[in-house]
Amino acid sequence: MNTHKRIRDYNITIGSLKPGKLNAISDVAGVRIGHLTSSDGPIQTGVTAVIPSDENLFENKLLAGVHVFNGFGKSTGLIQIEELGTLETPIILTNTLSVGTAYDALVRHMLKDNPTIGGKYGTVNPVICECNDGYLNDIRGLHVKHEDIYSAIEKADTTFAEGAVGAGRGMSCFQLKGGIGTSSRLIQIGDETYVLGSLVLSNFGRKDNFVINGQTIGKSIASQAKQEEKGSIIMIIATDLPLSVNELKRIARRSSIGLSRVGGYMGNGSGEIAIAFSTANTYPLRPNDPFMTIKSLHQNHIDKVFQAVGESIEESVLNSMIASDEVTGHKGHYRDSLKNWIHLVK
Amino acid sequence: MNTHKRIRDYNITIGSLKPGKLNAISDVAGVRIGHLTSSDGPIQTGVTAVIPSDENLFENKLLAGVHVFNGFGKSTGLIQIEELGTLETPIILTNTLSVGTAYDALVRHMLKDNPTIGGKYGTVNPVICECNDGYLNDIRGLHVKHEDIYSAIEKADTTFAEGAVGAGRGMSCFQLKGGIGTSSRLIQIGDETYVLGSLVLSNFGRKDNFVINGQTIGKSIASQAKQEEKGSIIMIIATDLPLSVNELKRIARRSSIGLSRVGGYMGNGSGEIAIAFSTANTYPLRPNDPFMTIKSLHQNHIDKVFQAVGESIEESVLNSMIASDEVTGHKGHYRDSLKNWIHLVK
Amino acid sequence: MNTHKRIRDYNITIGSLKPGKLNAISDVAGVRIGHLTSSDGPIQTGVTAVIPSDENLFENKLLAGVHVFNGFGKSTGLIQIEELGTLETPIILTNTLSVGTAYDALVRHMLKDNPTIGGKYGTVNPVICECNDGYLNDIRGLHVKHEDIYSAIEKADTTFAEGAVGAGRGMSCFQLKGGIGTSSRLIQIGDETYVLGSLVLSNFGRKDNFVINGQTIGKSIASQAKQEEKGSIIMIIATDLPLSVNELKRIARRSSIGLSRVGGYMGNGSGEIAIAFSTANTYPLRPNDPFMTIKSLHQNHIDKVFQAVGESIEESVLNSMIASDEVTGHKGHYRDSLKNWIHLVK
Amino acid sequence: MNTHKRIRDYNITIGSLKPGKLNAISDVAGVRIGHLTSSDGPIQTGVTAVIPSDENLFENKLLAGVHVFNGFGKSTGLIQIEELGTLETPIILTNTLSVGTAYDALVRHMLKDNPTIGGKYGTVNPVICECNDGYLNDIRGLHVKHEDIYSAIEKADTTFAEGAVGAGRGMSCFQLKGGIGTSSRLIQIGDETYVLGSLVLSNFGRKDNFVINGQTIGKSIASQAKQEEKGSIIMIIATDLPLSVNELKRIARRSSIGLSRVGGYMGNGSGEIAIAFSTANTYPLRPNDPFMTIKSLHQNHIDKVFQAVGESIEESVLNSMIASDEVTGHKGHYRDSLKNWIHLVK
Repeated sequence: MNTHKRIRDYNITIGSLKPGKLNAISDVAGVRIGHLTSSDGPIQTGVTAVIPSDENLFENKLLAGVHVFNGFGKSTGLIQIEELGTLETPIILTNTLSVGTAYDALVRHMLKDNPTIGGKYGTVNPVICECNDGYLNDIRGLHVKHEDIYSAIEKADTTFAEGAVGAGRGMSCFQLKGGIGTSSRLIQIGDETYVLGSLVLSNFGRKDNFVINGQTIGKSIASQAKQEEKGSIIMIIATDLPLSVNELKRIARRSSIGLSRVGGYMGNGSGEIAIAFSTANTYPLRPNDPFMTIKSLHQNHIDKVFQAVGESIEESVLNSMIASDEVTGHKGHYRDSLKNWIHLVK
Repeated sequence: MNTHKRIRDYNITIGSLKPGKLNAISDVAGVRIGHLTSSDGPIQTGVTAVIPSDENLFENKLLAGVHVFNGFGKSTGLIQIEELGTLETPIILTNTLSVGTAYDALVRHMLKDNPTIGGKYGTVNPVICECNDGYLNDIRGLHVKHEDIYSAIEKADTTFAEGAVGAGRGMSCFQLKGGIGTSSRLIQIGDETYVLGSLVLSNFGRKDNFVINGQTIGKSIASQAKQEEKGSIIMIIATDLPLSVNELKRIARRSSIGLSRVGGYMGNGSGEIAIAFSTANTYPLRPNDPFMTIKSLHQNHIDKVFQAVGESIEESVLNSMIASDEVTGHKGHYRDSLKNWIHLVK
Repeated sequence: MNTHKRIRDYNITIGSLKPGKLNAISDVAGVRIGHLTSSDGPIQTGVTAVIPSDENLFENKLLAGVHVFNGFGKSTGLIQIEELGTLETPIILTNTLSVGTAYDALVRHMLKDNPTIGGKYGTVNPVICECNDGYLNDIRGLHVKHEDIYSAIEKADTTFAEGAVGAGRGMSCFQLKGGIGTSSRLIQIGDETYVLGSLVLSNFGRKDNFVINGQTIGKSIASQAKQEEKGSIIMIIATDLPLSVNELKRIARRSSIGLSRVGGYMGNGSGEIAIAFSTANTYPLRPNDPFMTIKSLHQNHIDKVFQAVGESIEESVLNSMIASDEVTGHKGHYRDSLKNWIHLVK
Repeated sequence: MNTHKRIRDYNITIGSLKPGKLNAISDVAGVRIGHLTSSDGPIQTGVTAVIPSDENLFENKLLAGVHVFNGFGKSTGLIQIEELGTLETPIILTNTLSVGTAYDALVRHMLKDNPTIGGKYGTVNPVICECNDGYLNDIRGLHVKHEDIYSAIEKADTTFAEGAVGAGRGMSCFQLKGGIGTSSRLIQIGDETYVLGSLVLSNFGRKDNFVINGQTIGKSIASQAKQEEKGSIIMIIATDLPLSVNELKRIARRSSIGLSRVGGYMGNGSGEIAIAFSTANTYPLRPNDPFMTIKSLHQNHIDKVFQAVGESIEESVLNSMIASDEVTGHKGHYRDSLKNWIHLVK
C-alpha cells in the first residue's frame, strides 16, 4: 500500500480503539479507492474515486447520511442523499473547478453500466466532492480530463496511496502539504466486531493552530508564509455496521470532533462536508416487496461509533499530511512536508 | 416577446395583485433570460440562462435564499447559497444529465470575465438547476454542448419566449407539455412600488390533479397515458425589494403555495427547488469597509410579499403550459398542449 | 362521537381515497384523543391530548418525524424528535401562553408512571404544541390549569368531539370559527390495507383565501372583520404503516399540500408545524439486543401515502370548521360558524 | 464578582486573543446575569437568567441565531429564533424537568411588563434552556419554583458568580463538578474594538477525554466512577459587533470548536445547543418605517469572530469547572472539584 510512513510509524497513537487490518477505509469490505495524479510543473491536481461496494450501486443503493458543517463548497449530490438517504454512485473527489467535468464523466460511467438510467427509473445522482487546490495547482487551467475520472475508478483497489496523490495532489493542510489520508477503527458490539473507516481530502487550517495528539505543534514549525483559512475538507466515512439513515447523519456530524482535535477552526471560506455510508443494508432500485427491513443499531450503543469516527478522522488527517512529500507547483508555490517537523512531537 | 398567448389572454386572472409591465421576471430591473433550444427528432432539450444583474456578479454578489421542498434533485450551488446567502453567477437551467456540462461551461464563462477567480479570492460557485426531460428527450444522448450554455447566456434579454423553449423544450407538466413560464406582481410598500417576478421550469404533476384557478380541470382532459409523478420544478424568484437573507429564504419557501394551487403533490421523485434573490443590496467581493449596511423589509410587512410569490408562481406554471405547443420526441413520445383543453375552463 | 355534522354530511368529498371506519385519527389502532374545554365568558380555551399508543410510551417509543413550515411558534419537544426520530410522550395541544403549564403537567404525568425517568435512563421529552387563541380567549389570564391537562389525558377515547372543543375552543380559521378536526384515509399496499389519520388544531387563514374543494368560497362569505394572518396550525399525523424516520419526516412535510388546498398562505405570523408518527415499529427504552429491525415502506410506494396525507389534512381542516358552532368570547369578540355559509358551496 | 479563582489565575491562557475587562459575557454592554441557587441535601439545583439588554426586549428585539449540534434536549423558543432571527425575552437556564415552570414564570414576567402581549402584537417566545442535573439533584422532586425564576431575573448584574451556582448547581462536567462559566474576547476591526462573550452551563463529558489547553489531563485524575456521556451543554454567546442573522447562526455553530478542544464528544445523550445574539442592531416590535437598516460585518472579516468564539467557549467551560467546589447531593452522589487536580497541568 503506502511506501510512505504513516503517523503510527512515528509512535503516535490516536485514541484508544484498535484500527482494522489495513488501518484504512478499505477495511470495510467492498470499499476500494483509486487515484489519478497529475503532476507537471504548475499542474498539481488529480482525482480520487471512492467505490463504496462491489455490487451495481445504482441497482443496490446503500444507506447514507450527510452533514455540511460549513457550506462554502461546491459538492454535488448531497441534497438527494439528505432527502432519500441513499447513495447510488461512486464518490469522486477532485478540485473545485473540475466538478463539472467529474459530474459529466461519472454520468457517462453510470450510463454505460446501467441501461435503466434515463428511462422508467429516472436519472442518477452523481456525488462529486471538491477542495480548492489553487495554491499549488494552476486551477484555472482546468487540467482534469474525463479520462482521469475513468482512470481513477478503474484503478480502485483496497490498497492505495496516501498523501500528495489523486485529488490530494495539490492540497494544503495547516500550510503544510495535505491531501489524502485514511484510517479505521474496530467497534465491538456484543460478540461481533465491526469496522468503521474514513478517508479525508485535507485542505484546511492555519499552521499556528495545528495540533498533533494534543500537542500544539504548529507554532514550533518555522516554515511557511501566513495564509487565511480558505481551504476545505471532505470526509468520507464507511462502515459495515448496520445503521439507519438518521444514525448515518448523526455519525457524519461527529466527524467535526476529529477535525477540531487537529486544530480545525471551520474558517469562513472552508467548506467542510462529511458523507457517511453503511454497507450493511442495501436499498434495491427494483424491490420485490413494497416493504423493507432495515437493521440498525439501537442508539444506546451509538457512542462507541461516535468515538470511532472522531478517532478515525483525526488519524486520517494526520496520515494525509505525514504521507505527503514536499510539493512545488503553480507560480513556484511550495508546501513543506510534515515529515520535516514530526521530530518536534514529544 | 411571446407570439404565444398567455393565461391572461384567456381571461384567467390569478390572484388579486397587479402584474408588472411585462408580467415577467424581467420586470425586475437587470434580470434577463436567454434560451438555447435543441429540437430534432429524439433530441428535445435545451438551456435557459437567468442573468440576475447587469453588473459583474462575482464582484457584486446579490443576496439570495434557497428552499428545497423535495431534494430528489441534482442542482448545484445551493449549499453555498444556504451558507453565505449570496449569488455570484448566472443560474443555468438544463436537463439532469447535462448538469456537468453546464457547470463546466459556466466555470469557463466566469473565468473569462474574472481573472481573480482561482487566486486570492477563491473559486466560484456555479448554480445549475435541472429537471429530467427523459420522456420527450433522448437524455442518455447527452446532447447539450458547452456552446449551448454560452449561447443561452449571450441571447439573454428582457423579452424572451415561454413554453417549449430552452431548458423547457422537453419538459412535461401534468402530463401535458410544460416548460418555461414567467409572471410578476407589483408590491406597494408605503409610497413605493416594488416588483417581484418568477420564472419556472415546470416538469411535474399528474393530470388528474391539475387545477386552473380553483377548477379541477385535470380529470376532464381526455388525452395522455398514466404516469408517476417523477418530475421536478425549478422556481426562480427575483425582486427589487430590499430583503435580508433570512427573508429571501422565507420567500423561497412560500413558492410551494403557488405550486399546490395548480395541483402539485410533491411526489417522491419530484425535486422541487426554489431560489430567491433581491437586486436591492449588493455584497461586494472586495469591500472598502469591513462593515456593510443591508436594507431590508420589516417582517410586519412581509405577508404582501408572500402573497406575491404564491400568485406569481401559480401564474408562471400556467404560462409555461399554455405557451407550449404539442411536442413529439424521443421514441415517438408525445405531449399534448394545454391550448387544446383550455376551453374547458369555465 | 360528533353530534355535529361533518363535511362529508354535506356531500363534500375530499380527494379520491376512502376514509377509515371513524374517518378519524383514531382509526389508527391505539390512538386516542381527549379534550378539556373551558368556556365561560372571556375564557374560551382548553386542552387536547393525543395518546399515540396503548403501551407505556416512554418504555416503547414510536418512530416519529417533524416538519416546521413556519417556525413562528412555541411548541416544545420538536428538536429531540428531529434528532432521535422517537416520540415518548402524549402530545398536548393548548394555547400559546399555557405551554409552560402543559409541559409541567405532562412531566408530572410521565414521572408518575415511569420511575426510571430522571435516573439512569435520563429525562423525558414532553411534546406540547400550541396556537394563539387570544382573539376569543383571555389568553393573558392563563386559565389553563394542571388539572386540565390530566383531565384531557384521562378522557382520551377513540371517539371524540370536533370543532370548538379542547385546545380548539378559542381558535379561528379563515376568520370563521376553527378548532379541532380529524379524518383518515385507507392505503392499499399489496394485499394489505393500512390507515393514516390526521388531527388538526386550526387557527389560521384569511377569509378571502378560503377554498372548499376547489371552490373559492371565502369572498362570498359576508361576515367578519378584516384581520392579519396571525394564526397557526398544528397537524398530527398517525399511521399503522411501517415507515422509517426519514419517511415520517417526508410525510410530515406533505401536510402543506392539504393546507394550501384550503387556502393557507403560510403568513409571517402563522406557525405551521406537523408531527407524523407510525405505530408499526416500537423503539424500546431498554432493548434486549443492541440491534433493531425496522420495517419500512420502499419509497417507490410512498406517493400513495403522500396523497393520503394531503387529502386527510384538507378534510381535517374543513371538519374543524364545520363542526364548530359560533363562539363569543373575550371582549365580546365573535366568530361565525361555517355552518351558516356552507350552503354557498355548489 | 468571583471569590473563586479562575483558570487564568492558574497561569493557563486559552488562545491568543485578549479578554475584555471582566473576562465575562457581561463585558458586552447591557448583558447581565443573575442566579438563584437551591442547595439543601438532595436538592442541588437552581436557575440562571441571562438578560440580553437594558431595554424592553419585547419592544426592541435583538438579532439572534441558534445552532443545535445534538438535539437530545428540551430547550424552548429555538424554532422561532431560527425562523425570525430575533430574541425577545431573557434566556432562562434551569434543570430539564423544570422547563415548564420556567416557561410559565417567564411568560408571567413578560406579561407584567408588556400589556401588548396577547393582543394585536401576538404572543411571546420564551427561551428556556436546560441540562439534566439528575445525578446530584433530586430532579424528580421538581424543586424549582416560580419565585426562583423571578429572583434570578431580579438579581441579574454585570458581576456574577461562576461554578456550582444557579442552574449550574447540580451539573457535572467530565465527571467532575461543572456548572456556570464565562469569559470574553476582544475583537479588533479597523480602528474599533468590539467584545464577544460567552456563558456556558456545562454538564457533559467523560473524564478520560478531558483536555486542558491541549493537555489530556483526564486520565491522570484518579477520582470518579465511570459514567456514560449523558449530559448537555448550553452555550450563550453575546457580542456588540454588528452581525446579520445569518452570521449569528454561523457563529453559534463555531462554539463546537471550543467544546471539542476541552474533550467534548457530542455523545448520543448530550444535548448541545448554542444561541448567539448581537446587541448592535435592534428589531423594533412597532417600526416607524417598513424598511430597516441592518449593519453587519462583511464575511471576509468573520474568521476573527470565529476564533473569538472558539477561545471564549473553551475558557468558559474551564472556568465553569475550576470555580466549582465539591458537591454532595441526591443519594449521596458526589462530584469532585477540578481545583483538586489542577496541579496536574504542566
